[in-house]
Amino acid sequence: MAQFDLTDATCVATIRTLAADVVGKANSGHPGAPMGMAPAAHVLATRFFNTNPSNSKWFNRDRFVLSNGCALQYIMLHLLGYKLSLDDLKAFRQIDSLTPGHPEANHTDGIEVTTGPLGQGFANGVGLAMAQAHLGAVYNRDNFDLIDNYTYVFTGDGCLMEGVASEAASLAGHLQLGNLIVIYDDNHISIDGDTAIAFTEDVSQRFLSYGWQVVRVDDGDNDLEGIYNAIAAARSEKSKPTLIRLRTTIGYGSKVQGTHGVHGSPLKADDIQSLKSKFNFPPDQSFYVPSETYAAYRAVARRGAELEAAWTTLLGKYGEAYPKEHAELTRRIAGRLPEGWEKSLPVYKPSDPAQASRKLSEIVLTAMTPKFPDLLGGSADLTGSNLTKAKGTVDFQPPSTGLGAYSGTYIRYGVREHAMGAIANGLAAYGGIIPFVGTFLNFVSYAAGAVRLSALSKHQVIWVATHDSIGLGEDGPTHQPVETVVHLRAIPNLDCWRPADGNETSASYLVAIRSRETPSVLSLSRQNLPNLEGSSIERAARGGYVLYEVEGKEDLTIVSSGSEVAIALEAASKLKQEGFKVRIVSLPCWSVFDKQDKEYKLSVLRSGAPILSLEALSTVGWQKYSHEASVKYLLSWYMLMTVFSNTACKDGEHQDPSRRCTRNLALPARTLLRWARK
Amino acid sequence: MAQFDLTDATCVATIRTLAADVVGKANSGHPGAPMGMAPAAHVLATRFFNTNPSNSKWFNRDRFVLSNGCALQYIMLHLLGYKLSLDDLKAFRQIDSLTPGHPEANHTDGIEVTTGPLGQGFANGVGLAMAQAHLGAVYNRDNFDLIDNYTYVFTGDGCLMEGVASEAASLAGHLQLGNLIVIYDDNHISIDGDTAIAFTEDVSQRFLSYGWQVVRVDDGDNDLEGIYNAIAAARSEKSKPTLIRLRTTIGYGSKVQGTHGVHGSPLKADDIQSLKSKFNFPPDQSFYVPSETYAAYRAVARRGAELEAAWTTLLGKYGEAYPKEHAELTRRIAGRLPEGWEKSLPVYKPSDPAQASRKLSEIVLTAMTPKFPDLLGGSADLTGSNLTKAKGTVDFQPPSTGLGAYSGTYIRYGVREHAMGAIANGLAAYGGIIPFVGTFLNFVSYAAGAVRLSALSKHQVIWVATHDSIGLGEDGPTHQPVETVVHLRAIPNLDCWRPADGNETSASYLVAIRSRETPSVLSLSRQNLPNLEGSSIERAARGGYVLYEVEGKEDLTIVSSGSEVAIALEAASKLKQEGFKVRIVSLPCWSVFDKQDKEYKLSVLRSGAPILSLEALSTVGWQKYSHEASVKYLLSWYMLMTVFSNTACKDGEHQDPSRRCTRNLALPARTLLRWARK
Repeated sequence: MAQFDLTDATCVATIRTLAADVVGKANSGHPGAPMGMAPAAHVLATRFFNTNPSNSKWFNRDRFVLSNGCALQYIMLHLLGYKLSLDDLKAFRQIDSLTPGHPEANHTDGIEVTTGPLGQGFANGVGLAMAQAHLGAVYNRDNFDLIDNYTYVFTGDGCLMEGVASEAASLAGHLQLGNLIVIYDDNHISIDGDTAIAFTEDVSQRFLSYGWQVVRVDDGDNDLEGIYNAIAAARSEKSKPTLIRLRTTIGYGSKVQGTHGVHGSPLKADDIQSLKSKFNFPPDQSFYVPSETYAAYRAVARRGAELEAAWTTLLGKYGEAYPKEHAELTRRIAGRLPEGWEKSLPVYKPSDPAQASRKLSEIVLTAMTPKFPDLLGGSADLTGSNLTKAKGTVDFQPPSTGLGAYSGTYIRYGVREHAMGAIANGLAAYGGIIPFVGTFLNFVSYAAGAVRLSALSKHQVIWVATHDSIGLGEDGPTHQPVETVVHLRAIPNLDCWRPADGNETSASYLVAIRSRETPSVLSLSRQNLPNLEGSSIERAARGGYVLYEVEGKEDLTIVSSGSEVAIALEAASKLKQEGFKVRIVSLPCWSVFDKQDKEYKLSVLRSGAPILSLEALSTVGWQKYSHEASVKYLLSWYMLMTVFSNTACKDGEHQDPSRRCTRNLALPARTLLRWARK
Repeated sequence: MAQFDLTDATCVATIRTLAADVVGKANSGHPGAPMGMAPAAHVLATRFFNTNPSNSKWFNRDRFVLSNGCALQYIMLHLLGYKLSLDDLKAFRQIDSLTPGHPEANHTDGIEVTTGPLGQGFANGVGLAMAQAHLGAVYNRDNFDLIDNYTYVFTGDGCLMEGVASEAASLAGHLQLGNLIVIYDDNHISIDGDTAIAFTEDVSQRFLSYGWQVVRVDDGDNDLEGIYNAIAAARSEKSKPTLIRLRTTIGYGSKVQGTHGVHGSPLKADDIQSLKSKFNFPPDQSFYVPSETYAAYRAVARRGAELEAAWTTLLGKYGEAYPKEHAELTRRIAGRLPEGWEKSLPVYKPSDPAQASRKLSEIVLTAMTPKFPDLLGGSADLTGSNLTKAKGTVDFQPPSTGLGAYSGTYIRYGVREHAMGAIANGLAAYGGIIPFVGTFLNFVSYAAGAVRLSALSKHQVIWVATHDSIGLGEDGPTHQPVETVVHLRAIPNLDCWRPADGNETSASYLVAIRSRETPSVLSLSRQNLPNLEGSSIERAARGGYVLYEVEGKEDLTIVSSGSEVAIALEAASKLKQEGFKVRIVSLPCWSVFDKQDKEYKLSVLRSGAPILSLEALSTVGWQKYSHEASVKYLLSWYMLMTVFSNTACKDGEHQDPSRRCTRNLALPARTLLRWARK
């Protein structure tokens, strides 16, 4: 099996020349890494990788992540027979092609996760490996190793410099993920030049410190046997992830191999010709794939199809032996939610006691968890604050720690927000899992790089983001987000919820869980919130609704969200005593409200009277949902409200009094809260 | 010197009991870490730390960073005689006190950087140490070691789990920062409990892999001599940063010492009493400071005052020997900009060739650099793309690498955006330096945690954020930010510029450099932009202005920014041929425009005709600067413009056609660009 012959050399040369051609045709991209990593890609694909290109969603396939995302993955997918033609390769980096500049999940057949932004793929790989460990522990039985795939990650120097990868690597070592194999393209080159200018740490020692196995291959350019043995050694180590440190020459075969000149720019035409001649390929022919290369990879595809067939048979037998587990597993594989899960969502009356929405979130999780094994949650070391751990859940831990089991559903992420977000993307990408993650809203910003990729990749990740405003109190300005929610609201395909009470919290979970291709952030209060007259799951699930209506024509509508809705209601009540009719609109989720039909939206935010927004955050963006007009006249009585209010554009006057430091915001906000409580 | 006696024990006990009292009085906070770190704080302060509490800005003071930001720093500042009274300690965590929940720079006397958000302080410390290394190399001469302070950082498990700290630690090792001493409170406890649940890596080995010296102290609770020796060993190692791994008991002296119960909650009243009895302190007295404790710390303050006096004398003699260097150094220490620096800002005419604003930025940097030694810049491994390296600059590198010198002004950050942002905060906090940092706009999001602290801390950091829209082209959706600029615009005390041409780029640098207490992000194009008729540095420096005026009453105003302004101008020209009068407003910086007087703002965005916004980003927030009205009538001819346009709120109809995935945005955007180029 491990013997390598001329066909293998041809295959490797095919990958290298295709990389040069693909990047050359696009006149943009990174030819060096795929040329350097061609041997590893070939050995992995032909000797180890279990995949069925004709069904790229086969559940027990090995997962592959190209963390240093580039053309290599497209080339391999094409050779292996995924739905990616030579013409697709020729359209590399062109608009709306199947081969965008960096690989994107849910866009190109066979791409598991979106990579290119460095470090993300590495952490996604940790998530994919955790998903296997978890589902294997839950569903495998003696003689039924239904879920036992490996996760392979290719990574480069750039990824390993990123903090998100460090965080994920440390956690992967702690979790003893023997199913995770990372091949590090140790080519000493990044965009600015030799890694000697900024990256001189001992990477091997670092990964040993995390508890990884580290294996070296000194000639990654040619030593196919060495690569084979390294991967075999990695697979044998069952209780540690493995880093294979593969010394390669970037752009191997090019006249400028080993320099950063070959990192991010196409090879020159004569260099491509010389490269092909060197490998005995026709120098003038582009996108040339020898028939023996196709043959070699089609054999891999055949093997994969046989593996899937055998697996399907095994799954059938499993169904006879373990009908209950089989039903649940196949439901999860199919991506169906548990029957009637919504019924466990709590419903509240105004007479129910006031509670913090983080607590309301805990109640939802506790209610759902027993019938919803798909939920795999955790927190970045704020469990007691985020209230993310439902009663009775077991920690996801290696059994040897004595602290839990791989079948456990609660993940201790440590203080690693960015990795947590990227790992959750991996968990979601694996399938059968709905990951939720917890931290303070303020620290979702640490993970912004992963959050935007959840949205782009259509990964259903749910953020339990507590302590969501100056209402968090004593931790002070360093922990008080004002810009975070509008940041999240501006990310396409992400729903950011700020529920105002119990029913709205249930509604946010309802929509977040039903939205199988959209991540959600639930922005939750530290402080208690009353249950509101007029709220309901159904109404809140539309993203916005009239919480409090007046008879006849209103003087004012206040539109608000989250912990400020109750304050708005109190303001309306006070103003009523003074003869003003004030409607209250609760708008917990802009993006969901925006999708409602026009007539409905017009009925909620209707014309004819001013609309004032009220939120203890930056006012940026609220102008879309609020009118100008007589806001100021109101302010003459309730000056304090200027702190939160948005005075929308009128005659080019764009006053925005809350555009100030969180510190300044805090004092009047407290005063306002006190006022509202009177 | 290293002998420790009863007075030292009393001092340590004072810190511990004060920590219990401060947190107890606030009924909120973290007593455990200050109680555990009291011995280290005492040894450092009394035996090593050079500081003059009566002048907390003495330039050659040692820098102290409490990365696991808590009450300890306030207690030490009070004892040392900074402007922080016992009453201030009693106001811990109260609104508008000098002692907010976590230490804040430019708020409390003696606080160098803002900490609490974990990992930031660690990376700030690397920046402070780099600043010393740089300024020392530039200005020190034989017998004139004017700048030779140390930077001491206290850090905990939480900080070391964060990726930002990993990135910074790796770079600090590469940079061989012998002046950086980190004391790691190795107490095995974080908020979720024992670190065994998530953080089991070998921290010592990790730091060795980065090239640090690692020293252990096994009994950090009592072994003052051991702590002394460890710090002394750290100071002796001149070519490596040192991690002192100090094994402590969290909440030492409490009945619940060593548990996470003492991490984030006040001690119970009886526990505080028992603690005081244990240390022979009056159990019923709160905030008790024995006179010998004050005496010990006042001696430190006296020593510091003497040190500053001697330093000032030395500086005077330096002035005689090196008048030019002296003038420059004292100017930088005083925070004055070089005389006439603005004159180097390039001015452009419309006939000048079109250039990318990233290139225009490089031209500014190249023009300013020779006369502006305060600028210390770098990039996160995208130098050739960000164009941040001015011609002739030398790399900031340890001399032993042969790649540069500590006097060099160009920093190779590696692919470490988050650490870069936090390090820049440290560079700015040191004084005498204006740091600028480069990456793609998309990856500023990786550093969001540091960016918000620049703003809160009033650190002047300038981000050169290139490739700022779908205009970056082939890298594709993974690298195309749409939400980033509005995120930055929502951060109080941060100016986000999107210059449209050469003059606007110069204007953005003008204001960014003049804003000594405000960070700025310059959002710059990859693609070429023409120089616009009507732009000028002066006009653009107001944040927004009328670029193109019509005679009489306009039909429409288009308000735009950055690379879309030229497109708006072309649209105006096309519409003119069809008989429409279209004004163009360029609005490169919202926050600066917002600060202009009302009359001016009304003259720019005037009433009477619709205002349409045009930007190749999320439309969130533009509603503040654009009217409703007849936008749709325009769209009937120029449907493509809907992609960028914001149709502001009208009668509750909140259509926002561009709220979609970046991928979808890209195609019509390209089409629009092509259209505009016709």
